[in-house]
Amino acid sequence: MTRATSPKSRSTMDNFDFKAYLKARQTLVNERLGAILGSLDPRRELTCAMGHSLMAGGKRLRPILCLAACEACSAPLEPALPAACALEMIHTYSLVHDDLPAMDNDDLRRGIPTCHRAFGESTAILAGDGLLTHAFQILSRPENLFKVFPDPGVRLELVAIISDAAGINGMVEGQMLDMLLQNADETVTSLELLTQIHTLKTGGMIRASVVAGAVSAGADNAMIESLAVYAEKIGLAFQIVDDILDVEGDPTVMGKTAGSDVDNRKMTFPSFMGLEASRKYAQEIINEAVKALDLFDEKKTLPLKAIAAYILQRKR
Amino acid sequence: MTRATSPKSRSTMDNFDFKAYLKARQTLVNERLGAILGSLDPRRELTCAMGHSLMAGGKRLRPILCLAACEACSAPLEPALPAACALEMIHTYSLVHDDLPAMDNDDLRRGIPTCHRAFGESTAILAGDGLLTHAFQILSRPENLFKVFPDPGVRLELVAIISDAAGINGMVEGQMLDMLLQNADETVTSLELLTQIHTLKTGGMIRASVVAGAVSAGADNAMIESLAVYAEKIGLAFQIVDDILDVEGDPTVMGKTAGSDVDNRKMTFPSFMGLEASRKYAQEIINEAVKALDLFDEKKTLPLKAIAAYILQRKR
Repeated sequence: MTRATSPKSRSTMDNFDFKAYLKARQTLVNERLGAILGSLDPRRELTCAMGHSLMAGGKRLRPILCLAACEACSAPLEPALPAACALEMIHTYSLVHDDLPAMDNDDLRRGIPTCHRAFGESTAILAGDGLLTHAFQILSRPENLFKVFPDPGVRLELVAIISDAAGINGMVEGQMLDMLLQNADETVTSLELLTQIHTLKTGGMIRASVVAGAVSAGADNAMIESLAVYAEKIGLAFQIVDDILDVEGDPTVMGKTAGSDVDNRKMTFPSFMGLEASRKYAQEIINEAVKALDLFDEKKTLPLKAIAAYILQRKR
Repeated sequence: MTRATSPKSRSTMDNFDFKAYLKARQTLVNERLGAILGSLDPRRELTCAMGHSLMAGGKRLRPILCLAACEACSAPLEPALPAACALEMIHTYSLVHDDLPAMDNDDLRRGIPTCHRAFGESTAILAGDGLLTHAFQILSRPENLFKVFPDPGVRLELVAIISDAAGINGMVEGQMLDMLLQNADETVTSLELLTQIHTLKTGGMIRASVVAGAVSAGADNAMIESLAVYAEKIGLAFQIVDDILDVEGDPTVMGKTAGSDVDNRKMTFPSFMGLEASRKYAQEIINEAVKALDLFDEKKTLPLKAIAAYILQRKR
């Protein structure tokens, strides 16, 4: 059981079994992602390569955030499932492309060989392209695989939110800036630039996950805006903890080659402000995230609060 | 001036200035694509790389088909402009990724260095990812850059049609099969497989371009289905002519390294059935495409008929 960081909600949180919640949601998301893959010819190289990376046991943080945000708005979680799956597919595509030899050149991801190590570089590029494109197919035509889904207008809004966060003003630009920094022969000395890259690369998609859940639930603007603040805070904390884990982690726990960011002289929060200050900074931001949930029914926000605490405490 | 292949419409076609039409449509599409790029920070590496490939003087066949299909349905072309631009962005992304060293490893495209030769491999991968993702942003949020655009329900349908044609059951799978053939050490002897790959890789997006134009115009199902038949026919003819040009072409006319498909032992129509039979086959298919337009107002289909004739006669 994971405890919340805010004393006022501790007693409620003690009755919330986060481990069981996480497991149930992961099972649900894996089942739906499995159904998406199951609708494709299993003998196709592309199906195998996409499945290799998509079903490699990821945390499913983004889809779970999407579902939890939908529930925080006092809606059933079913209408958020198409967006939840699309978000995980886009997250996985970004990992597959980021791992490529021309990018971060990683051999291991989620404890198994990266897509290009297992299937070759051209297949990995295409598997990434396929996951990205098919995510928009799932968002626009959920009726083939989902029983419950939002109205067309809401689905179009989901396409807009997610393509914005994933694209050239979001995740793609974040990776671009990251690559330029890695390739440049100078050290970056600005925490502002570092935070900008993290926001673009990771924060934007975490924000989109939470907002997509709220939009799928038919939430009003005040709810969407509060959840967006929560998401921006946990997104930044997530990246700081990622950086801390990359310094501390060992490959058996982390599931990817430890210290790989350091080897490539990638800027990280610990290298900028030190390990202890990074930990403290992450804690402060998580406290602010939890505060942004004040306007919601407290019981409905238990999963989001537990996720915030989990982000701080996670070991991989 | 280009003459139609069908005798019955020759007198009408003689009064249609296809060259001027093509130029006007190319100018319109380039202007809108330029506005999309112009909305991005010009100093960003990603903007430069996307612009390098997007504004390299492509034929704009897919957007022009989209606009011409919209006009064939007796609608003004403006509502089809967002889809037209999205289709060209997705076409360009596919060229950028197909040219990569791990794929076709091409140095020249549209007469200039390929994206990865000009900007490096990681930037080219990201520029492709960016063009693909931003196409869905344009489709879902056209109001930022277009004055006229279809209703939300129609826009969602466009996302569905285009993501289907571009994705794992369309273009991405076509390139995957193509790569598997190139990497295999055996010659393919089936015209059926060859046609399947071409349909997936090129035909599907040409079909989507035409159908997207009709859907943007608010066309009825009979119109959409007739235009889909037209599109399937010209799509196949397009690929056959591409193959013929690759055998005959020289690099100054073709704009890419000539004979590159042959070097890589890629299967082509000429290598399968010979040059003359390939030419005859393309002509037959174009005649069938023109016949599929019978139910439309003849005057409104002049551009589509001229495009069909152009596909047969083009030199690059």
